[in-house]
Amino acid sequence: MSFGLDNLPYGVFSVDGGKPRVGVRLEDQVLDLAPLLGDDVFREPTLNPFMARGRGAWRATRGRVQDLLADDRGAEHLIPLDRVRLHLPIDVADYVDFYASLEHASNLGRMFRPDEEPLKPNWRHLPVGYHGRAGTVVVSGTEIRRPCGQRPSFGPSAKLDIEAEVGFVVGAGSELCRPAGAFDEHVFGVVLVNDWSARDIQAWEYVPLGPFLGKSFATSISAWVTPLDALDHARVGGREQDPAPLDYLRRNAEWGLDLALEVRLNGEVVSTPPYRDMYWTPDQMLAHMTVNGASLRTGDLYASGTVSGEDSPGSLIELTWNGARPMKSGQSFLEDGDEVTITATTPSGLSLGEVTGRILPATVR
Amino acid sequence: MSFGLDNLPYGVFSVDGGKPRVGVRLEDQVLDLAPLLGDDVFREPTLNPFMARGRGAWRATRGRVQDLLADDRGAEHLIPLDRVRLHLPIDVADYVDFYASLEHASNLGRMFRPDEEPLKPNWRHLPVGYHGRAGTVVVSGTEIRRPCGQRPSFGPSAKLDIEAEVGFVVGAGSELCRPAGAFDEHVFGVVLVNDWSARDIQAWEYVPLGPFLGKSFATSISAWVTPLDALDHARVGGREQDPAPLDYLRRNAEWGLDLALEVRLNGEVVSTPPYRDMYWTPDQMLAHMTVNGASLRTGDLYASGTVSGEDSPGSLIELTWNGARPMKSGQSFLEDGDEVTITATTPSGLSLGEVTGRILPATVR
Repeated sequence: MSFGLDNLPYGVFSVDGGKPRVGVRLEDQVLDLAPLLGDDVFREPTLNPFMARGRGAWRATRGRVQDLLADDRGAEHLIPLDRVRLHLPIDVADYVDFYASLEHASNLGRMFRPDEEPLKPNWRHLPVGYHGRAGTVVVSGTEIRRPCGQRPSFGPSAKLDIEAEVGFVVGAGSELCRPAGAFDEHVFGVVLVNDWSARDIQAWEYVPLGPFLGKSFATSISAWVTPLDALDHARVGGREQDPAPLDYLRRNAEWGLDLALEVRLNGEVVSTPPYRDMYWTPDQMLAHMTVNGASLRTGDLYASGTVSGEDSPGSLIELTWNGARPMKSGQSFLEDGDEVTITATTPSGLSLGEVTGRILPATVR
Repeated sequence: MSFGLDNLPYGVFSVDGGKPRVGVRLEDQVLDLAPLLGDDVFREPTLNPFMARGRGAWRATRGRVQDLLADDRGAEHLIPLDRVRLHLPIDVADYVDFYASLEHASNLGRMFRPDEEPLKPNWRHLPVGYHGRAGTVVVSGTEIRRPCGQRPSFGPSAKLDIEAEVGFVVGAGSELCRPAGAFDEHVFGVVLVNDWSARDIQAWEYVPLGPFLGKSFATSISAWVTPLDALDHARVGGREQDPAPLDYLRRNAEWGLDLALEVRLNGEVVSTPPYRDMYWTPDQMLAHMTVNGASLRTGDLYASGTVSGEDSPGSLIELTWNGARPMKSGQSFLEDGDEVTITATTPSGLSLGEVTGRILPATVR
């Protein structure tokens, strides 16, 4: 079942303009946790205070909710999804975006730097990543205004694109200058991410300090955070790595995830990127991000980078080869009014929900 | 006077392990604002709630404090600086670092990319910038642990460096997809910044997405935030720009600042970078950062990038030309136990306080 007892993702909802609070999704309903469990942490408007309690609390809560629902206690606290409004589930602390797909990094290298080796010399030695703008992370369904900027002449982006990604939400932080613990001690759960990208703005601005305005106008995440514990059956070893990574990046457990993504443009599937084939796994990203002594905070979000398989890229710039091979619709990038929806499922059919957004025309400034 | 009635920077302090609260510095004392003004916003542990009130409130509060102090009312709420502990004054939302010095960008270009033009083609057209890690911004005085990482072999950074910068604290935010207002509507004040940098880690990791672990282990800011209103007499037109910037980057007011920085290494002045000669001014940075529709939040911090004059660079990599010309002490980068202090003054002798930090040895991991 997509949203059955084995799933139970967390989100933040409100009813009739009331105060946002924490719920769990069961099929097409939201379980109102605060009254069910008698715990005020679920009356908070984000998951952060609950997530800060750590892995023991996450497991205990999930177990209790499963028990109650299995016994049919809780029915009075179920609210139909179509009666609620969903909000950004987390207060995002720092947002980091990685670049973990070999196919994506190679494709982008070929297009942005045609005269060079597609992969930079560091790429197979560390998960390349950078910080994005936490303040413009928005919940699925938020409309996305086409950004303006230097392309290099000034105007609305003519190459507005998507990046289909998988994101990891840090629940339990770590101290500055102390080594972080295991991946599942810190990471609470998984979201789907659309890292909207204005390719023309990005191509002009990104040297030498990386993407900035080409990405910072908006990043959408799914309204439901799937707990790591729901994904045990989807765990896989992760792609073979050559050269073998340094000690601190060695995989101590299987944290690859077998997630099948689908990207829909105006309802039509345009790509089906396989997350399981990513070169760098999320435990490696966490180890890398903290190896210099950087701390983690509750609410940190880090994303995989575009999930691209060999014939199933997670961005339009790859799908249409920067406009050289338009889609059937004739278009190569996003047009005003376009709606993009990214979904993902596990091998057992568990759904990670969706991240969706529609493009609004640029504001003339 | 350095910290007289014309200065009055804001900070967060505590006494005897008590709760941190907001104060204003007068000479070598802290004025305890909450009891003086009878306003609980100053009992908060960061400046954010006060800053969120906006420019009208900032000016009114400053005027009232100046009046009270001039009339000698307030003496009972002055606490000697040596009795208080200073804390990180703001809850940092997003942290952006620019690259606004022509000399710094040219110098780094020559060292990192010796076979190319020092400046990338975009540099004179937009203030190049990127997001840094907000969660590792620390207050002046915090000890800095030497980071480990790939250099590309794994180990403690052997090229630990400083970057002397001027930072701008956003007090009043702006809405997503709405144009931001004037610089002084949003920016509350100025801090000094030391953007610690591990050059060996940075050089290996930074292509193609920019600096990450080479910077994210720590960024220090001064404990005192100088209100923009205290800096009126230091305003200058800003360096001439060629080519003329695009409309949205046109300067509508003089927001260059005549600040004389001093960088001390273990007590000895090693450089005196002039902020007034920076190519891009902070109003231009704010306009650029938001032109794509990105919102500002209370607590956003953006920094100028290294302040380097022709013969007075704000980093050791420039001062020693990446080790080719060691300092008198024989060293080229930071050694364990080194203490770096950055200060700045205006033409009238007003002090912007200091940002200081001492290097702790790497933890063997």
